[in-house]
Order: sequence, then structure tokens, then C-alpha cells
Amino acid sequence: MALIAFIGLGQMGSPMAANLIKQGHQLTVYDISPQAVEGLVSCGAKAAASPAQAAKGAEFVITMLPNGDLVQRVLFGENGVAETLSPRALVIDMSTIHPLQSDSLCREMQQRGFSYMDAPVGRTSEQAVTGTLLILAGGTAEQVARANDILMCMGSELVNCQGPGMGIRVKLINNYMSIALNALSAEAAVLCEALGLPFDVALQVMSGTPAGKGHFTTSWPNKVLKGDLSPAFMIDLAHKDLGIALDVANQLHVPMPLGAASREVYNQARAAGRGKQDWTAILEQVRICAGLSPKVKL
Amino acid sequence: MALIAFIGLGQMGSPMAANLIKQGHQLTVYDISPQAVEGLVSCGAKAAASPAQAAKGAEFVITMLPNGDLVQRVLFGENGVAETLSPRALVIDMSTIHPLQSDSLCREMQQRGFSYMDAPVGRTSEQAVTGTLLILAGGTAEQVARANDILMCMGSELVNCQGPGMGIRVKLINNYMSIALNALSAEAAVLCEALGLPFDVALQVMSGTPAGKGHFTTSWPNKVLKGDLSPAFMIDLAHKDLGIALDVANQLHVPMPLGAASREVYNQARAAGRGKQDWTAILEQVRICAGLSPKVKL
Amino acid sequence: MALIAFIGLGQMGSPMAANLIKQGHQLTVYDISPQAVEGLVSCGAKAAASPAQAAKGAEFVITMLPNGDLVQRVLFGENGVAETLSPRALVIDMSTIHPLQSDSLCREMQQRGFSYMDAPVGRTSEQAVTGTLLILAGGTAEQVARANDILMCMGSELVNCQGPGMGIRVKLINNYMSIALNALSAEAAVLCEALGLPFDVALQVMSGTPAGKGHFTTSWPNKVLKGDLSPAFMIDLAHKDLGIALDVANQLHVPMPLGAASREVYNQARAAGRGKQDWTAILEQVRICAGLSPKVKL
Amino acid sequence: MALIAFIGLGQMGSPMAANLIKQGHQLTVYDISPQAVEGLVSCGAKAAASPAQAAKGAEFVITMLPNGDLVQRVLFGENGVAETLSPRALVIDMSTIHPLQSDSLCREMQQRGFSYMDAPVGRTSEQAVTGTLLILAGGTAEQVARANDILMCMGSELVNCQGPGMGIRVKLINNYMSIALNALSAEAAVLCEALGLPFDVALQVMSGTPAGKGHFTTSWPNKVLKGDLSPAFMIDLAHKDLGIALDVANQLHVPMPLGAASREVYNQARAAGRGKQDWTAILEQVRICAGLSPKVKL
Repeated sequence: MALIAFIGLGQMGSPMAANLIKQGHQLTVYDISPQAVEGLVSCGAKAAASPAQAAKGAEFVITMLPNGDLVQRVLFGENGVAETLSPRALVIDMSTIHPLQSDSLCREMQQRGFSYMDAPVGRTSEQAVTGTLLILAGGTAEQVARANDILMCMGSELVNCQGPGMGIRVKLINNYMSIALNALSAEAAVLCEALGLPFDVALQVMSGTPAGKGHFTTSWPNKVLKGDLSPAFMIDLAHKDLGIALDVANQLHVPMPLGAASREVYNQARAAGRGKQDWTAILEQVRICAGLSPKVKL
Repeated sequence: MALIAFIGLGQMGSPMAANLIKQGHQLTVYDISPQAVEGLVSCGAKAAASPAQAAKGAEFVITMLPNGDLVQRVLFGENGVAETLSPRALVIDMSTIHPLQSDSLCREMQQRGFSYMDAPVGRTSEQAVTGTLLILAGGTAEQVARANDILMCMGSELVNCQGPGMGIRVKLINNYMSIALNALSAEAAVLCEALGLPFDVALQVMSGTPAGKGHFTTSWPNKVLKGDLSPAFMIDLAHKDLGIALDVANQLHVPMPLGAASREVYNQARAAGRGKQDWTAILEQVRICAGLSPKVKL
Repeated sequence: MALIAFIGLGQMGSPMAANLIKQGHQLTVYDISPQAVEGLVSCGAKAAASPAQAAKGAEFVITMLPNGDLVQRVLFGENGVAETLSPRALVIDMSTIHPLQSDSLCREMQQRGFSYMDAPVGRTSEQAVTGTLLILAGGTAEQVARANDILMCMGSELVNCQGPGMGIRVKLINNYMSIALNALSAEAAVLCEALGLPFDVALQVMSGTPAGKGHFTTSWPNKVLKGDLSPAFMIDLAHKDLGIALDVANQLHVPMPLGAASREVYNQARAAGRGKQDWTAILEQVRICAGLSPKVKL
Repeated sequence: MALIAFIGLGQMGSPMAANLIKQGHQLTVYDISPQAVEGLVSCGAKAAASPAQAAKGAEFVITMLPNGDLVQRVLFGENGVAETLSPRALVIDMSTIHPLQSDSLCREMQQRGFSYMDAPVGRTSEQAVTGTLLILAGGTAEQVARANDILMCMGSELVNCQGPGMGIRVKLINNYMSIALNALSAEAAVLCEALGLPFDVALQVMSGTPAGKGHFTTSWPNKVLKGDLSPAFMIDLAHKDLGIALDVANQLHVPMPLGAASREVYNQARAAGRGKQDWTAILEQVRICAGLSPKVKL
């Protein structure tokens, strides 16, 4: 049983806090909405008049807030957590915020002698209710170990993201990839419809290729990730196929801005002399455009 | 045992033709390269001096050529297949060509009283050698049934793509999706590296979400594909997360042209009043931008 | 002669403040850099220990700061301008900041009973020294009139942007257009080089067309801006020409991400049924994608 | 007075041919449309039954056709120009076609001992009627000199584009730039509208800056074109301003795909170490992405 301050009782925070209470922890809660606070009080929590009051005497302080400026204010603002926090307590920010702001909050906490970790969550509000969230724990090995039992009251799976700030980073990467992929998938599906191809046929085929399974575990591991750019499928040919797809799409009036952008990425890769390399060399190409040092010899 | 004309003996065509011979079929082959022809002759094929000569008396004519203009010339040019082809023969184009050009070849063949189907292949030249290609068969049910045994001499899996021109269409969609996805995946991986996040941690998380599994079989089936746009994850929030990712990427000097293009797709979806809809509504949004009729009520 | 508080003595602010002194005004200055303050004191300014002290008794308060958060803090933070400002004074923010943040600062000032206007500047630090800046004055007619003589000590040209917040808006639009146009111009020039075309020949031709003169004063006024979309040059043809240019660029390895994005804009315009309209109908198309009401009947 | 074969009597070709007749030249014309031919016959032209017949005895052969494949067929197809052309005649292709195809036609003609030049036109069908087209003459000095009087019967201005294939190249560059610029201008104008800024105010300001005047004759000549990348306006600041504009546009629901693409170009320029260089260094950056050798030292 732990003494926990929980700050931020929104659509996610409220059921998460309730699950902590159900597991026997003693909660003091704070939110700007009196109704949200009342909801938790009726579950057995104590209400606090400010973040500072909530944090007083707590072993863990959990924040679940809409953005980083609010986390900043809750920690360091007037009547903020930092005013009463014990140096032995662990602050766990479970909000989804800007990772570079999370880093700066972490530094500020350390400079003041406090312990701070990031642990944003995956999945949705349904899983928050059933306590089956995915917890992305960013912190030192010691912090993650210490927080583990608390966090597992709210989730069914915890990934140790291997260091401070890594929870919020993996959340960002995962969301970026899935949100942009959604738009790309829509382009493919609409081109499919415009071509009069039954979507289930396309699905059947794509389910066995990187189109459906992604590249991370299919085309990349034995090629670019191992430093082998000898071609299984050449960039020149991939570029040509993209050109045909865009040509068809433009004939059929299907706008494909992501497809058009990707063709120029391959175009630039060819300009850089990669035309005869494996298509997974695009990873190396994008790395170099980002100013990173080459990993694989050209 | 069938009499087969095989035209186009490149990196793919040569081993495919050889596999047909191994299975007991009698082949007459044609290619502009005498060496390629000799290679097959040494396996037991007869050499023809032209496509017309190869096609004479054949039950099946298979073309495996680099582009549609060559298929056009091989079929309808001087000394082309059409000059000698029997109306009872079946022509199978296994080349990867422009689908609208494939349609026009198919029409032209029908008008001349010939039978033509498309059956491009998936996988690589290694699988061509081992006879384990993926065959994407586009044709009438009767054509696909008739070609099945022949095609399965070259491949280990055949997908009946449900109609003339559908093989070449599914090839295009699959390649478009996987090639563009490769570029998007590179953006995510490079952002990961720039953020100092171990790639295996990112992989572990993404392997359980649409970021790694794609949307076709995860987020879409119970939402947009069923006509339900009530939000599990709102477009407004997806748009916000993309904005954070791009902001971080721009701070860290990671160019993300696909990410930038996708943000504008979400931006336009919000302008169209979809901000509170589920993120899978992007499919419907892209459909409408392509001039298609709405499937789901706003 | 006016009593002026000048806050923000950077590369632009210092010479601007110096020019006010030269024209006989009495300045009290503040900056976080003591050296910057000393520089102005040696020109005849008084030093203030805080924005509040600088603003005390001033008829005009001018801010010239790197971003909107700093303007916010200078006005409303501890020892900020608002603590001592006279309700009869006029605050002129000459910084280049986010326009929606400028609006919110303006509202906040009004709510506190103060007078605030925006007047960002065009041109560079050279013109700041010579007092020949372009002043983009956003404010009520009365504010602009009152500020005119003060502003003209720093600039040689003043545009009355016709309302509060309009100076900062026009700055944003102008910079957006010129910065993005720079990237587009580079694509055209590099394609020119890759094609082996002498740049001066291209320049000679473009100097007489919208390519060099822009559309605002050439193709638009008699067409889309008048509501006439009858084609002088059809969207279908413009789309075709873009396709050729991108095809050439992709053959010659010239990446053109802006060109590729623009082709998809025309693609979408065609999907919306605008193929036979004048190319200036793109303006109307983009308006509608932004959720604005049609101005011109389809 | 010259004997001229004119092939291609469409919306542009017909009035161009008519103007040649008015100036006293003797025309033999060919088109697939009998009506188009009749129209010219009624003006005084002779009708030919094929390109070959038209070209027989002609001193000049002018082609004005919709695409390069047609020019190819008219020259080298059955009953084509090449069958009857005199080696002393000059063939002038005035069509707008793919420049690399134009090069290949030119080579083919030379190999057969014929003289061929490109001279596409600028402006519209109105100017074709009034004989005030802009003629973009690509050819040797001798060819351009020889064609000059003929071409000036159809246009009011001739630009000697300084070499074979240069007319068609300059046409492509000019059209690319003006068509893509149209889309970019629409983004700026719609952002202007969404911000509530009167367009005439924006125009007034932009008319004095590169936003309205373009970069070719303003920001570039004294900077990147002279090899000077010392900053008048730094890439870092341009990148920041683009970020603000995109942020505002995304708040206001104005999709700006070209703006988003351009931000990633600046992003990549910063990754390449150009943040403190002048914004005109984007030209050099794009050159290098296209695989060209650096002109300016970093």
C-alpha cells in the first residue's frame, strides 16, 4: 500500500486513479474540475486543494495532464508539487507531452534534488477503465523497478524503455508512425477503389508482404540493418514503380501527396548514387539527409 | 504436357521457363538475346526466330517483358504473336506493366478474337529459380482455372485476383504501398535515432500497434470499413501529435517530407469538419478528395 | 519630442532606438544585456532596471523582442510594463511574433485599459541602421496616426495595414510567400541546370510571364479574382505540363518536392471537376479545401 | 516567299498557318481533320494527303502537334515527312513536347542528314490569331537566322534560346515555375483570407519584396549567384518563420502542402550545416541534392 498523489483526472486520469484505489493504494487527488475530484472522492480518494497539498507526504506523485505547460505549472508553479515534495518521493509523469520539454522538466527536477520519470500510456480510455493500458516506462532501472507495481495497477503490459525520457520518446515515434501510416494506407486503398480492384484481394496479397507487415521485421533486418545494401529489390526499380503508381493515380484523379513526396525521396537517393542499392538503403539515405554519419559504406 | 511459347528470357523469365520444362512442358522460346535463348535451348526448349514463330501452334503464350510497350510490340508488331496465334490459345502476360495499358492490350486481344490474361508475379529472382513465386492471376474464372497448372509450375502460391486486369492492379497497389511505406518507415527510424531512443525499444512497442501491424487489419475493420466514425482516437488529437513529431523533427534536423505531407492531409480533414471523428475517417476524407461519393455520413 | 520606453536592444532594436534619439526623442531603454544598454546610454538614452521602470511616465513603449513569450513577459510578468504603464500611453510591438499570440496580447492589454498596436518591420539590419525600414503598422486609424511620426524616425516607408493585428499578419504572409518561393525557385533553377539550359535564357523568358512576375498582378486579376474561370489556360493542361516537368526531373535526378506537392493539388482540382477551368481556379480550389465558402460558381 | 509544309492544324496551328499565308508564303497543309484542312485551303493553302506529300519540295516543314509521339509518327512513320524531305529543308517543331524526346527526334533527323530545330510558343490562342506569339527558338545560330522571318510571321517576339533543344527546355522551365507558383500563391492568399487580412494590403507589401517580385532578380543576384552566402537573412530564421506560418495555417485549417514541403527543404539545409548561411543558399542545397557539384564553398 502506497501514498499516492494523483494530479489530472480527465478521461484517462480518472479511471487510472480509480484502479489504483481498487488495488489498495491511498490516493490524494487534484484537478481543476471539482466534479472530477468528487468522482474520485466517492471511490475513496482524499481531495487536495492544490498540487502542493496533494504532494505533501506522498511516496509517488502521478501527473496525467493534457500538455507540457500544465505539467510545468503543476510541478513548479505557485502551490506546485515542488513546494512540498519529499526528496524521497518519485514523480511519474504519465502525460503525452513534447519529449524535449519532458527532458527539461526532468533536468529541473534533478537540479532541485527530486526523482522524476516519464511513463506515458498506450491504448485508449477503454483500457484505462479495465486497467489494461500499455505502460511505456522511461526512467533509470531503479526508478522503473520502484514504480513497477504502482504502474501495473493501471496497465496489463509494461515496456521498460531503457532510460529517462525514453517512454515519452517511444510514444512519439509510435504515434508518428501510426498516424502518418494511416494517411498513406488511405492513399493505397483509394487507388485500389479507383482501379476497381476488390479491397479484400489487395488485403490478401498485402498481408504477406511489407505492404501489410511493415518493413521493420521483413525487408530491413537482413539488409540495411545488417549493413548489406546489395539489391534484393533495387531503388531504381522501386522508383520506377512509384512513378507508374503516381501516373495511374493522376490519370484516375486520386491525389497521393505522400506517394508524391516519397517519389522525391527515391529521386534524391538516386541522385546520391544509390540507384543500384537495395531499396532498404532509403533508411541510410534519410539518415544522411538528417546530418547523421553514414553507417554503411556506399 | 502443354505446348507453350515463352517470350522474354531475362532474370525472371529464364528460370521461369526452365521450371516449365522441368515439369514436362514443351517450350518454344524467343528473346532478343541469343545467349538467353541458347540457355533455354540447352534445357530442352526450341528456339523461335520471332514471336510469331514461337506462338505458332502454341496452347499457351507467356510474355515476361520489361514494359508494356514491348508487350504491345511482341503481340501486335511485325512478326508478332497475333500473326500466328490460334484463337484457342491463351496468352498470359506475366510482366509488370502499367495497368491501364494492360487493359488496352486485353481489349485489343479480345477484339481480334484472342484470349488474354494478366498474371504478374511477386517475390524475387531467387524464387523464380526455386519455382516459389507468388502468382497474381487476373482473368476470368475460366482463364484462371485453365492457366492454374501451368502457373503453378513457376510459383508456390496463386492468388485469384477475381477478374481480368486484377493481377496487374494488385501488383501495383502492393508495390505502391510497400515502396512508399519504406520511405515513411525510414523517417520514423531516423527520428528515433535522433532522439537517442534504442530502435529495439521502438520496435517492441510498434510491433503491438498499427505503427508496426498496419491499419488494414487493426484500426480500420471495426471503424471506417464498417461505417463507424465515432472516435476511438480523434483526428484532432492525431493532428496534434503529428504537429509535435514534426516540431521535434525540425528541432533535431530530421527532414520528414512524408510526415509533413500527412499533417496537411489531417489539416484538410479538420477543415472538412472531421476533427471529432475517428482517425480512420482519413480514408473517407481521401476518397472524397479523389472525387468519389461518400460512403459514410458525416 | 516624446518620452519613449524602448525594450529590446538587439541587432534590430539598437539601431532603431538610436535613430529615435537622433530625431530628438527622449528614450529610456531596457535589455537583459548590460552592454546593449550601455551602447544606447552612450547615445543619450537613460537606462532602466526593468520594463516597469522603463515604462513609467512614457508616452510610447516600443518592444522589439525575439518572440511572443518574451513580449508577454515584458508586458505582464514581474516588473513588467503593465505595472507602471499610463493608460494614455501607446504600446507598439515591433517584434515578429505569432499573429494569434499578438491578438491575445492585444486583447489582454485592452482588458486592462491599455492601448496596444503591432508594427513589425520589413528589410534588414542595414536598413535599421540607416532608418529606412519598411514599417507594417497594425492598429486603429487613430493609433496609426498617433504613432506615425515616431515610426517614421526608424523607417522610410509605412504601410497602414488597416486594423489591429494586421501588421503582424502581413509580415507573416509576406515571409511565408517569399521563403517558400525561394525553395520553389531553386527547383526550377536546378532543373534548368540539369537540362543544360543557360539560366539567363530562362530568366529572359520568365521575366515576361507569371513565372517571373508572379500571379497576383498578372493571371489572377482578370480571372479568378473577378469570378471568371473560363479557361485562358486549362487546369488539365497545367496538370499535364507539371507531369512532364516531374517526369524529366525524375529522369535527371532533380528532386522537386514542391513540384510534386503542387501536382497533387492540380490532381485534386481535377477530381473536384475543375479540369476545364482556368488554372487560376486553383485559388478557389485551395479556398474550399480550407473549409471556406465558394466565391465562384463551379 | 517560301514553300512551307504545315502539319497540325489545331487551335494553335490553324491561325499560325493562316498568318504565314497572309504574309505571302505558299503553304501545303496536312491534318487528320478534313475540316481543319478545308479551313486553310479556303485561305489559300494546298491540301496534302499525308505528311510525306506535304513535305515534298518544301523549304520549311513546320509541325504543331499535341505530343511527341505524334511528331515522331509524322516525321518517321509510314508516309512520314522523312520519306520525301529534301536535305536542304529545315524542319521546325513548334509543338510542346517532352524535351528528352525532342532531343532524340533531333538526333534521329541529323543521322538521316536532315536539319531540325525546336521552336515552341508562349502565350495563348488569342495571340496565335493576332500573330503576336512569343517564339522560343532552339537551334543552331544558322538555323535560327534562317527561320527568323518565317517565325516572325506568327509571333511578335522571338527569343534565341541559344542552341538545339533549348526552346523546348525553356518552355518546360517557364511552365513548371508558373504552374507550381500558382499553387503556392493560392496557399498564401488563402492563409491571408483565413487571417482576415485584406488581400490588397498583402499585395501592396508583397509588390515590393521577393514574395511578389520573385527571387531571380532580387535576392539571388548579389548572393548565391555571386557565390556569397553571408547572411542578409539567415536560413535558421527563414525556417523559423515557415514554422510559424504552418502552425498558424494548421490552427486555422488552411492546408499548405507546398509550404509543408518547403519547410522540410529548409530543415534539410540546416541538417547540412547551412543554418547560418543566407537563405539564397537553398539554391546550392537543392543543387547538391540533385547530385550536382558544389559551386560555393560551405
